[in-house]
Amino acid sequence: MPDCPVPLTDETRILLAHGGGGTLMHRLIESVFLPRFANARLDERHDGAVLEAGGVKLAFTTDSYVVRPLFFPGGDIGKLAVHGTVNDLAMCGARPLWLSAGFILEEGLPRETLERVADSMRDACRAAGVELVTGDTKVVDRGKADGLFINTSGIGLVEAPAPVAPRSMRPGDAVLVNGDVGRHGMAVMSVREGLSFEGGIVSDTAPLAAVVLDLLAAGVEVHCLRDATRGGLAGVLLELAAGAKRSLLIEEPCVPVDEAVRGACELLGLDPLQVANEGRFVAVVPDQDAERALAIMRRHPESAGARRIGRVLDDARGVVTLKSALGVGRLLDLPAGDPLPRIC
Amino acid sequence: MPDCPVPLTDETRILLAHGGGGTLMHRLIESVFLPRFANARLDERHDGAVLEAGGVKLAFTTDSYVVRPLFFPGGDIGKLAVHGTVNDLAMCGARPLWLSAGFILEEGLPRETLERVADSMRDACRAAGVELVTGDTKVVDRGKADGLFINTSGIGLVEAPAPVAPRSMRPGDAVLVNGDVGRHGMAVMSVREGLSFEGGIVSDTAPLAAVVLDLLAAGVEVHCLRDATRGGLAGVLLELAAGAKRSLLIEEPCVPVDEAVRGACELLGLDPLQVANEGRFVAVVPDQDAERALAIMRRHPESAGARRIGRVLDDARGVVTLKSALGVGRLLDLPAGDPLPRIC
Repeated sequence: MPDCPVPLTDETRILLAHGGGGTLMHRLIESVFLPRFANARLDERHDGAVLEAGGVKLAFTTDSYVVRPLFFPGGDIGKLAVHGTVNDLAMCGARPLWLSAGFILEEGLPRETLERVADSMRDACRAAGVELVTGDTKVVDRGKADGLFINTSGIGLVEAPAPVAPRSMRPGDAVLVNGDVGRHGMAVMSVREGLSFEGGIVSDTAPLAAVVLDLLAAGVEVHCLRDATRGGLAGVLLELAAGAKRSLLIEEPCVPVDEAVRGACELLGLDPLQVANEGRFVAVVPDQDAERALAIMRRHPESAGARRIGRVLDDARGVVTLKSALGVGRLLDLPAGDPLPRIC
Repeated sequence: MPDCPVPLTDETRILLAHGGGGTLMHRLIESVFLPRFANARLDERHDGAVLEAGGVKLAFTTDSYVVRPLFFPGGDIGKLAVHGTVNDLAMCGARPLWLSAGFILEEGLPRETLERVADSMRDACRAAGVELVTGDTKVVDRGKADGLFINTSGIGLVEAPAPVAPRSMRPGDAVLVNGDVGRHGMAVMSVREGLSFEGGIVSDTAPLAAVVLDLLAAGVEVHCLRDATRGGLAGVLLELAAGAKRSLLIEEPCVPVDEAVRGACELLGLDPLQVANEGRFVAVVPDQDAERALAIMRRHPESAGARRIGRVLDDARGVVTLKSALGVGRLLDLPAGDPLPRIC
């Protein structure tokens, strides 16, 4: 009997969980989009496409942002929209250069809200060294959007000398993460639900291009990169393992989780490894480069908590085993949707 | 006393008209976005940005689609989303190559609707010779979107040897349009309002890259191109005149308008020149290239009705004069919003 982690659903209609980064979203993409638009770039299932134009290697990516509420501890929809697209380009081993911004505004939105978001995007663009070069504004009737949605797409120049992709992962490679996980999701949750957690939880949203470009400039052989957004760290590890057709062994006690986040997750019955991040990424590098890579990562404030959390196994099943402090291993599983919807 | 074409409004909130391609939208862009993101590409106020990467000239553009209803005579939101972005790239003198697609789905959307839209996008991509290489899917709660919004961004390779922009327009240049105007807006309107117009009005939505690339390949000196979407032909002519700081003289009887469209517009009190198109563009070319350009345009079915409609004057006021059949001239004015909201 197959296991059944997916709730029985009316498959004829779209559910919130179809946007959650879990099995339902993957199934939707695999059944609706991939068969129709099949091509090498889309089939790679990366956060961005790597393209060649006139001998120049470009990365191209897109993301829509529907986070609710628009403002939360540590950030807002505008900051997310810039960081998210910058980070997707960085995860392709690219230097982010140009962004587009498409706004869908709801009639009645306070102009001041739009201005605050635009201020935040301006600051985030400056900090990440990207230029917003083209845009679009649409307005929909009152009640037909939730205040404000933003799409950002981005172009970067690929600086990685070799493909940064799951298929480049090798047995024995080290799996690194650049800091503690679960903060973004819990920060949004706290304000959405009016909860106040001890110590206050602030989103980890941050641009990740500088640290990635430093790794590349230092000659670290970066095999794979992926930011741990929807689906959390668990989702990313499962995607990488499946894409690489290589199993991963993760030492659970090595995965950094802030005490306030751990407490809040326990309270709400959530697994911090499944909670979305917006400034965390997984890097897969050769074992002999791991310590050097960690040292470089720790020079950047957003990656100060970088840790080695596991390794790539010589096993083509593509599963992820989480080893507890007691040495017990359990297979990681992707949830159906995100435990926290509309987190980005 | 300044004239006051804009309704007195509560300027502290977003109105539907802010998305209409009229003066209110321009004012919003000028007051909120341009001051924050000022750069040469954005200041150009084109539908796309022209960028240089490693010696390669790229065009980059973005558009969100919120058309209501999703399906209308001659097209649907998916077709629009592909054509619109392909056309914005073409208007930069570029060969469209790659598209991204960002979907915002409303919980409860019938899966069959999404599949029809995806089918349509696949067909439109094939017809336009572009590849959809990266995407994103978000789902928002029931009631928080209007079924389905799509953002497409696109990258093209610039093939025009000289800048295709209002500043390249010269006195004496001919102003051409590739066919009859006002069909898209009236087609959407007919189904939205349940009106049935004599003869049936079908949207003109079409990809325009092939005809533009043919003009360039034939060595036609293309000074400026702009597709006549939101704001209609009138909006585009006013934008070009203001951007070029050159006045335009348009012969109103030369502007092709389908009889059914003219009748429907009269019925609804609309000016067909202000109604949005999705397969119509204005080309500004040197007078001596005009006849050759028209002949090339007419070889393409979507441009079979190409006409010369006016010329660029040696006058820096940047106004547009519409000369009637009786020889009477009147100054064209931009409406505050689109007379028909959510047309694309």
